[in-house]
Amino acid sequence: MGSPVHRVSLGDKWSRQEHPDIKSERRVPSFNVERLTNILDRGAQNTAIRRKVESIIHNDPVFSLKNNYFMTQNEHYETALRKRYHIQMIAQRLGWLADGCELAYAFRALSGDVALTLNGVFMNALRSLGSEEQIAKWIPLCENFQIITTYAQTELGHGSYLQGLETEAIYDAATQEFVIHSPTMTAAKWWPGDMGRSATHALVLAQLICSGARQGMHAFIVPIRSLQDHTPLPGITVGDIGPKMDLENIDNGFLLLDHVRVPRENMLSRFAQVLPDGTYVKFGTAQSNYLGMVVTRVRLLLTSILPLLQKACVIAVRYSVVRRQSRLRPSDPEAKILDYQTQQQKLLPHLAMSYAFHFTAVSLLEFFHRSYDEILRKDFSLLPELHALSTGMKAMMSELCTQGAELCRRACGGHGYSKLSGLPSLVTQVTASCTYEGENTVLYLQVARFLVKSYLQAKVSPDSAPQKPLPQSVEYLARPVLARCPAQKAADFLCPELYTAAWAHAAARLIEDSVHHLQTLTQSGADQQEAWNQTSVMHLQAAKAHCYYITVKSFTDALEKLDKEPAIQQVLQRLCDLFALHGILTNSGDFLHDGFLSGAQVDMARKAYLDLLLLIRKDAILLTDAFDFTDQCLNSALGCYDGNVYRRLFQWARESPSNAQENPAYEKYIRPLLQSWRSKL
Amino acid sequence: MGSPVHRVSLGDKWSRQEHPDIKSERRVPSFNVERLTNILDRGAQNTAIRRKVESIIHNDPVFSLKNNYFMTQNEHYETALRKRYHIQMIAQRLGWLADGCELAYAFRALSGDVALTLNGVFMNALRSLGSEEQIAKWIPLCENFQIITTYAQTELGHGSYLQGLETEAIYDAATQEFVIHSPTMTAAKWWPGDMGRSATHALVLAQLICSGARQGMHAFIVPIRSLQDHTPLPGITVGDIGPKMDLENIDNGFLLLDHVRVPRENMLSRFAQVLPDGTYVKFGTAQSNYLGMVVTRVRLLLTSILPLLQKACVIAVRYSVVRRQSRLRPSDPEAKILDYQTQQQKLLPHLAMSYAFHFTAVSLLEFFHRSYDEILRKDFSLLPELHALSTGMKAMMSELCTQGAELCRRACGGHGYSKLSGLPSLVTQVTASCTYEGENTVLYLQVARFLVKSYLQAKVSPDSAPQKPLPQSVEYLARPVLARCPAQKAADFLCPELYTAAWAHAAARLIEDSVHHLQTLTQSGADQQEAWNQTSVMHLQAAKAHCYYITVKSFTDALEKLDKEPAIQQVLQRLCDLFALHGILTNSGDFLHDGFLSGAQVDMARKAYLDLLLLIRKDAILLTDAFDFTDQCLNSALGCYDGNVYRRLFQWARESPSNAQENPAYEKYIRPLLQSWRSKL
Repeated sequence: MGSPVHRVSLGDKWSRQEHPDIKSERRVPSFNVERLTNILDRGAQNTAIRRKVESIIHNDPVFSLKNNYFMTQNEHYETALRKRYHIQMIAQRLGWLADGCELAYAFRALSGDVALTLNGVFMNALRSLGSEEQIAKWIPLCENFQIITTYAQTELGHGSYLQGLETEAIYDAATQEFVIHSPTMTAAKWWPGDMGRSATHALVLAQLICSGARQGMHAFIVPIRSLQDHTPLPGITVGDIGPKMDLENIDNGFLLLDHVRVPRENMLSRFAQVLPDGTYVKFGTAQSNYLGMVVTRVRLLLTSILPLLQKACVIAVRYSVVRRQSRLRPSDPEAKILDYQTQQQKLLPHLAMSYAFHFTAVSLLEFFHRSYDEILRKDFSLLPELHALSTGMKAMMSELCTQGAELCRRACGGHGYSKLSGLPSLVTQVTASCTYEGENTVLYLQVARFLVKSYLQAKVSPDSAPQKPLPQSVEYLARPVLARCPAQKAADFLCPELYTAAWAHAAARLIEDSVHHLQTLTQSGADQQEAWNQTSVMHLQAAKAHCYYITVKSFTDALEKLDKEPAIQQVLQRLCDLFALHGILTNSGDFLHDGFLSGAQVDMARKAYLDLLLLIRKDAILLTDAFDFTDQCLNSALGCYDGNVYRRLFQWARESPSNAQENPAYEKYIRPLLQSWRSKL
Repeated sequence: MGSPVHRVSLGDKWSRQEHPDIKSERRVPSFNVERLTNILDRGAQNTAIRRKVESIIHNDPVFSLKNNYFMTQNEHYETALRKRYHIQMIAQRLGWLADGCELAYAFRALSGDVALTLNGVFMNALRSLGSEEQIAKWIPLCENFQIITTYAQTELGHGSYLQGLETEAIYDAATQEFVIHSPTMTAAKWWPGDMGRSATHALVLAQLICSGARQGMHAFIVPIRSLQDHTPLPGITVGDIGPKMDLENIDNGFLLLDHVRVPRENMLSRFAQVLPDGTYVKFGTAQSNYLGMVVTRVRLLLTSILPLLQKACVIAVRYSVVRRQSRLRPSDPEAKILDYQTQQQKLLPHLAMSYAFHFTAVSLLEFFHRSYDEILRKDFSLLPELHALSTGMKAMMSELCTQGAELCRRACGGHGYSKLSGLPSLVTQVTASCTYEGENTVLYLQVARFLVKSYLQAKVSPDSAPQKPLPQSVEYLARPVLARCPAQKAADFLCPELYTAAWAHAAARLIEDSVHHLQTLTQSGADQQEAWNQTSVMHLQAAKAHCYYITVKSFTDALEKLDKEPAIQQVLQRLCDLFALHGILTNSGDFLHDGFLSGAQVDMARKAYLDLLLLIRKDAILLTDAFDFTDQCLNSALGCYDGNVYRRLFQWARESPSNAQENPAYEKYIRPLLQSWRSKL
């Protein structure tokens, strides 16, 4: 096992002494934690590079997160820019590549608390939608920060429904320019990160109008601030949209465009082009414009969504072996709260989920790499499945990671409400992901449309093979249906085949049910959209069950490949079992509804589940250690590696600036109040 | 209908023009909104007093909430003190009583954003635990703010398990004083509101030791800051615990006591007393010390928890009739998002919940008033039921209001993440209530213990009547069990008797099941505590079902009394139906498990539920108007009465201070970054 020194808080002498209550948890590890870290890092060499980058970052005082919980919005923004600037200087000095792993590890070490991250979203879109010439021209400018870019899609009055965007780009053949314009107040671009006070260029999504015809949404590179003095360019009104629930490192902004002219070459033209005379030429499908978002969604999972749940688990689990409360037996000392079944039930399913989502996101990333190049070469056959998978996984992971992080926070009692625990900011950050890059309900309903199509394709000729093969992720829709679960005792539920089949059954039944209702409505005369709306609550439920199935399946498949690491495979298998059963018990109605499970079988599943909690509890600290987050990056008084919870919380609280200041409110209000009763005499 | 003028934002000329999309919702009201407001206020005279107080508050610039979203922690604290001071001056001038409704309405108008609220918690405890002499001495000092008080129970290392508190109070007969002492760092009092920088006196909960014997937790009045100059008194170390997820108006603090002496008379002595010679005399039960917390929990529901969900509903529903997105039919304009079934499903069950919880909390308050005086007279017969009801309702309402407020926030898409929407602070405030005044899991398990006892009492002699009558709220445990739900069509589910019986059935089965498992474990040799722990996940589930049943029953009972208001009764009946069915569908497994409902019946319930959404949607705006929150108190760019969402959001954002300032980060980091590529050449 690697030395834990790299994990330990700097500066506090006592922090090299592990608290005995956490030390005892690490005494007899049932598996090699370092090896599991390597697996999570996708290779021991990655672990080594990551730790090297972390040591560079954490040894540089510029990157200290120490004052983060005491800053104003402005200080957050300025600090985030300062960090970004210094990282770029380090990257230049050490030769880190713009898309290399070192920069990614640096952002991880800083918990993403840097500015100018929209740069990456801009480049994703550019690489997806730009021609080779455009990529060759603009990417180096972005990578070198010769320009600072953002991605401007959402408008004040328009979000996920892109056809509703109001911003216009009218082609003027006389000058070979596009005239980009916000016709109304609600057309103001709203929310783009780095826009409020930083960006020099925006990728503006606008309705293309050429030769008098509307051609739908396209992307245009628009300079918005002077590269000389950073003032807004003519026709540009730009500013900050004000305070948010979190993400104060980012200056989300608004942008109004008043007949701003950009050259014809500034429309991204991999899939569509406007010729000099105004002729519109299309090479792609209607969906190809969404490709940039697909890339961003896939990348977000492992960098910006999942780590927030993982950290919440690390903090809450570590705190739960140091916090003691009440007695399990009158003669015993107070018990570690992780020994309570209710605490295990709060934390361990989310620990299992952290692993389940990791392996699912990695498998999605691999599928993405396989399919992306095909799509760029204008072979769109894998796009619908890639779109459905990335959309569904973004929706599910952001939703469940948010719920999980908040439950971890509450599982720390009052201290989880202190910012010093690190938990509030994890919650207020991760909940943003339920909305950004596509609102989750809209995304789930897009998955549902894919499922309806796939279902109809699978059933088109029930007696013969379907005409074209089903996408792999929905092949289960064509498989014969198992009417009853064969489980006869609790242990039967610890079988990946059994619970994967159970999830496939539930998802397929819900999809079938929602299609059936949809068809009934349309056959009785409702129009398509109305029928869809009236069944959308059912579609939503079906899409969620499908996504859960995909995750269980991905986790199961990933574990099969770990057969050379039996000890790790065993402990992860328990997490996989727990994840699958937790979902079944939480949604037991979906499994009982058609008698697939009986009440007695649900009780068996619960017994298996509760027994798993006890087994996983033993490895809980090791499983959180394996994520290998540094103390600096956790920035939590409750969650440090050494377990010195109370000492650190006490010290951090006493160092709070308000304890070092006079209280000006005393003379102004407290003293007058305390003396005001005299005036009543 | 009353004039809406009192509801309208001041200052903006355009805000007296209702947006046509919200105006159309109010055109043909199906019931008298003003009358419903009166019912919610428990009398038209209360509505009148409330509006008078609101007009005093909102016309005074001291109480403006306008800058709330831009303040630092220190500014929040100071502003909250300023408001509190001015309210007290107004109260003195106008003769508002300390426990009168005017002050309560003033706090409502200010959304509780004032300081020194622990004063009320101190007085609740004093009235519950103090002798008549102590009450006569201390209450006037509190009411006049001759002293500023707080309630110091929780410690750094100890929370809901009060027996684990470490602070000691050792009686010294020689001087007739108690010596109050924190023996360790983890004994530091931690979290008391108003303690960090304001309070002069604390009610310290400590382990009483007299004549060498430990007598358990008792409450002591301890002066902590000088009334002359506000400096900490000898032996006192006190300070602020640092930044929190929200509630920055309150200076939560820590307190270390180093052998601090207080006179014998400072121990609250209604239920226990130490005689001068050190003899300990007890008049109450072990539970009587919890009475102060019971009072506080009951009061919290209507003042500090429920309004946060109600406001979230108001904001989200109003926004949802102005926000338009996508098309329901190709030829139509974009649809109001409240016309989407998925949006109705997000908001309307929470609107129903807001009403359900209101009537339940009022009924609990009435029960409290009936039983409290008995308890103070040392008749403890109603205390167990009062404790179980207040505990269960606090846990359930805080949990579901938190979940609901967050879902309302997300239902507003990106704008719900802007602080200017008012929603983030509702969420970060209400989530605190899941932990303060008793952590919810601990509370639910206390309810479960009451349920186990009640169940055993009900079943003690199955052939005869039980020995003593069951508390009213658990009488259903003794009733004959209905094995199958008789519903045969969707409309059958719109029947209070049917769904109340369904909830009683599910709760009773879950309680029976958990008792059965508990008994099986103890009969097989597990000791009591271990058996309890191993069944606690089941007990939790049973307690939650019981609380849901109580709420459905309370709402149903309250509606029966509204038979003189048929139009209001009808619209509220739909909300009651929706609340009950939403719970059944969300927990359908609990109803399918033993075959009480069949899958086909769940489908009927869903049909009834979806049809209700459409009906309630028509009255949604009126139902939110009836809460009669002023625009100032909502403080939301999205939720104002007039529906001018985009104009207000745009204006508030542009007025954000960061748009009025230079960007110092430009010269420091942005310009150097933009020019750094040159150094690479």
